[in-house]
Amino acid sequence: VEFDGPCMKTEVPGPRSKILAQQLESIQSVVQVNFFCDYEESKGNYLVDVDGNRMLDVYTQIASIPIGYNHPALTKVMTDPKNMGTFVNRPALGMMPPEQFSEKLVNGLMAVAPKGFSRVQTMACGSCSNENAYKAIFIWYRVRAGVLSFFFQVPGCPDLTLLSFMGGFHGRTLGCLATTHTKAIQKLDVPSFDWPIASFPQLRYPLDQFERENAREEARCLEEAEDLIVKWNQKGRHVAGVVIEPIQAEGGDNHASFDFYTKLRGITKKHGCAFLVDEVQTGGGSTGKFWAHEHWGLDDPADIVSFSKKMLTGGYYQKDSFQPDKPFRIFNTWLGDHTKNLLLTEVIKVIKTENLLDQAKRSGKVMLEGLYDLQDKYPHLLSKARGIGTFCAIDVKDEDTRNLLLLKARNKGVVLGGCGTQSIRFRPALVFKEHHAHLFLDIFNDAITEL
Amino acid sequence: VEFDGPCMKTEVPGPRSKILAQQLESIQSVVQVNFFCDYEESKGNYLVDVDGNRMLDVYTQIASIPIGYNHPALTKVMTDPKNMGTFVNRPALGMMPPEQFSEKLVNGLMAVAPKGFSRVQTMACGSCSNENAYKAIFIWYRVRAGVLSFFFQVPGCPDLTLLSFMGGFHGRTLGCLATTHTKAIQKLDVPSFDWPIASFPQLRYPLDQFERENAREEARCLEEAEDLIVKWNQKGRHVAGVVIEPIQAEGGDNHASFDFYTKLRGITKKHGCAFLVDEVQTGGGSTGKFWAHEHWGLDDPADIVSFSKKMLTGGYYQKDSFQPDKPFRIFNTWLGDHTKNLLLTEVIKVIKTENLLDQAKRSGKVMLEGLYDLQDKYPHLLSKARGIGTFCAIDVKDEDTRNLLLLKARNKGVVLGGCGTQSIRFRPALVFKEHHAHLFLDIFNDAITEL
Ligand code: FES
Repeated sequence: VEFDGPCMKTEVPGPRSKILAQQLESIQSVVQVNFFCDYEESKGNYLVDVDGNRMLDVYTQIASIPIGYNHPALTKVMTDPKNMGTFVNRPALGMMPPEQFSEKLVNGLMAVAPKGFSRVQTMACGSCSNENAYKAIFIWYRVRAGVLSFFFQVPGCPDLTLLSFMGGFHGRTLGCLATTHTKAIQKLDVPSFDWPIASFPQLRYPLDQFERENAREEARCLEEAEDLIVKWNQKGRHVAGVVIEPIQAEGGDNHASFDFYTKLRGITKKHGCAFLVDEVQTGGGSTGKFWAHEHWGLDDPADIVSFSKKMLTGGYYQKDSFQPDKPFRIFNTWLGDHTKNLLLTEVIKVIKTENLLDQAKRSGKVMLEGLYDLQDKYPHLLSKARGIGTFCAIDVKDEDTRNLLLLKARNKGVVLGGCGTQSIRFRPALVFKEHHAHLFLDIFNDAITEL
Repeated sequence: VEFDGPCMKTEVPGPRSKILAQQLESIQSVVQVNFFCDYEESKGNYLVDVDGNRMLDVYTQIASIPIGYNHPALTKVMTDPKNMGTFVNRPALGMMPPEQFSEKLVNGLMAVAPKGFSRVQTMACGSCSNENAYKAIFIWYRVRAGVLSFFFQVPGCPDLTLLSFMGGFHGRTLGCLATTHTKAIQKLDVPSFDWPIASFPQLRYPLDQFERENAREEARCLEEAEDLIVKWNQKGRHVAGVVIEPIQAEGGDNHASFDFYTKLRGITKKHGCAFLVDEVQTGGGSTGKFWAHEHWGLDDPADIVSFSKKMLTGGYYQKDSFQPDKPFRIFNTWLGDHTKNLLLTEVIKVIKTENLLDQAKRSGKVMLEGLYDLQDKYPHLLSKARGIGTFCAIDVKDEDTRNLLLLKARNKGVVLGGCGTQSIRFRPALVFKEHHAHLFLDIFNDAITEL
């Protein structure tokens, strides 16, 4: 049985959280810490903190908890003595995989592989997933260009580039960071690659009132992207690939139409660029399809699809041709963490048996309609309600008000997160049902009235 | 009770491993796979494969198993119901850490912090540890230079660099890869940063016969490093930091004298460069001290020390001044994996109560003396036996012979790994005792006689 609602005992962070933060501060920065949690007591959609506050979690550890806290299916994985060796001994998966590795991949990652992908490379987090996908793209580009033998004679760093989009987020390690364009503070002081960056469409809302303007804006961005590819190719700094999120998440839940993505995919094919769809935040079911790019309805939507977060393990699906020609070109000590594959296999079973993709569609409908109502009710405060499935967001009039609203909501028992400069992103787990959506909307409304 | 020796039933890989590799091949490259393992049956120093072969493991998943397979202290962590929530729900450690986070860091990472370090940043693997350490260095360099306010007005990518060494290995993500200089295939086709690279001393063995030459070689490398720093600073591409391993591990177990490191540390101080000591492979006790750089005997050996592998979690220790001035400059979704902190706390307890650092010294002595004997016995085949603690290596006359010897040893029940072009590295767990060393030497000798 799940908790029947939030239950608040103190402000958040409460006194116990504050003491723990003081303790932690002596060995680590705590400027980012919100509050400390009791992960044993948390359950389903409810996160319990160390002061006994029980909150409806619509942020889920930065969109990374797939089926709620302490789901019995996952607890069972942990108590199965057969799995003990996997949790206690971490294998170098690339060299000495465990007996069940293949089976767990087949019943896990491959059971939800996007159409057209028959190969997967496991990694450990979103950053190494993208870093290695970038490498796979560069290698593919050179090998396909037939210059490999030349390069074996003259090893060096070819002047290849990746095209990314303003407002995109693909991670914070140096390769990823070169394609991440959200907040300036993330890139400040860190050397980067000089690679082309295209505009991402800035759509006007409500969409049905600005159809023509938005179509023009998308056409402008597509033209800019294609121009950049042509120009950079001409100057010898070839664009080996294009990397994009199906919804720019960290950057502010920026959507573009399926038509935009369809045309962008066409451009990559026309110019021989790989197309990498970064589903680190969008993948795993919350849009109502397992992968957000499935909404585009394309037969050949991507060359590589990267994932992490709700997938528990990192990694990427790849077309056969992106498999490097030689060993140890894509490699590291662990190549993921098999314990996450074990857990993921159960997560996927739960998603299927409990029809959680349909659930996300239904709950998302309640949420989005509720958000539309709220922005009608508070037009001076809220705008641009948007989303697919439960992957929803809304804009608040300015950054300070947004941040205040996040705190107000939290003290009323709803954990939320911001994105972009003035947006709130909603990222519930897949077990978030219609009544949770109603509960969330009620509390959110209360919090707004206090502004 | 531990197994009393290897027990071989088939060649390795055996028939079952081959079937599993065929299965895996349909979804993933298997060119790097050696054989499949039964991690439930493995124990202590013995790795059991899926064909029932039991092998003495002197490679330990690329130097990443600290206290052997299925150590009862680790099994206990897993069966403690108090820890269930940690294993099933992965927190975003930077924002919503679990109640015991601070305590586990104090009893884990901080209990073995190198002298002079009171702060630690957790990460998930060696690559993100170094990538973020690099970022911390760049940020520190700018902030210290007092140009932060300027850069907030003109955000951009400063032309800062890191100095690394030929033969060094610091990871394979794009930032790390710019400082990794081992095999050409690792860097081929991947864009990189143009940063200075200094020669690492190529010592001649036996060391006591080449004292003068080796001192000259080290002086040459130090001069080259200092020259590079001066020149790159002069051309405006300031060297913010120097990154080095205490022993170049992947690059071929290349050692330099403690005097070399002492002087290099002096050079970094003189020129205001941060000094990052990468202990991803050397850290965790196998040199007989918890950190290899402790052998240098310096009061202020480093500004940042990165770790992973046998530490189970990744991360780095840092001087206070390397803590970024603003939140979210060093950040990612998970910032490590708290389950690894739980396990590490127990690993450290075991290392202390069982005096495993002393054990590594004693076993290392047996190993190194045995290796000296072998190279005396087979001077046409073996040379350059070297090591500290059990962190030992030996060179084989050429790469093909080295690789053949690795296979012969494996079929006789010893798992070994190569490094560099023609070296074998020995990386047993800390529970490797004198009798394991003798056993290893006997089998290794047998394998050599078969060449
Ligand atoms: S870079 Fe992904 S886990 Fe370290």
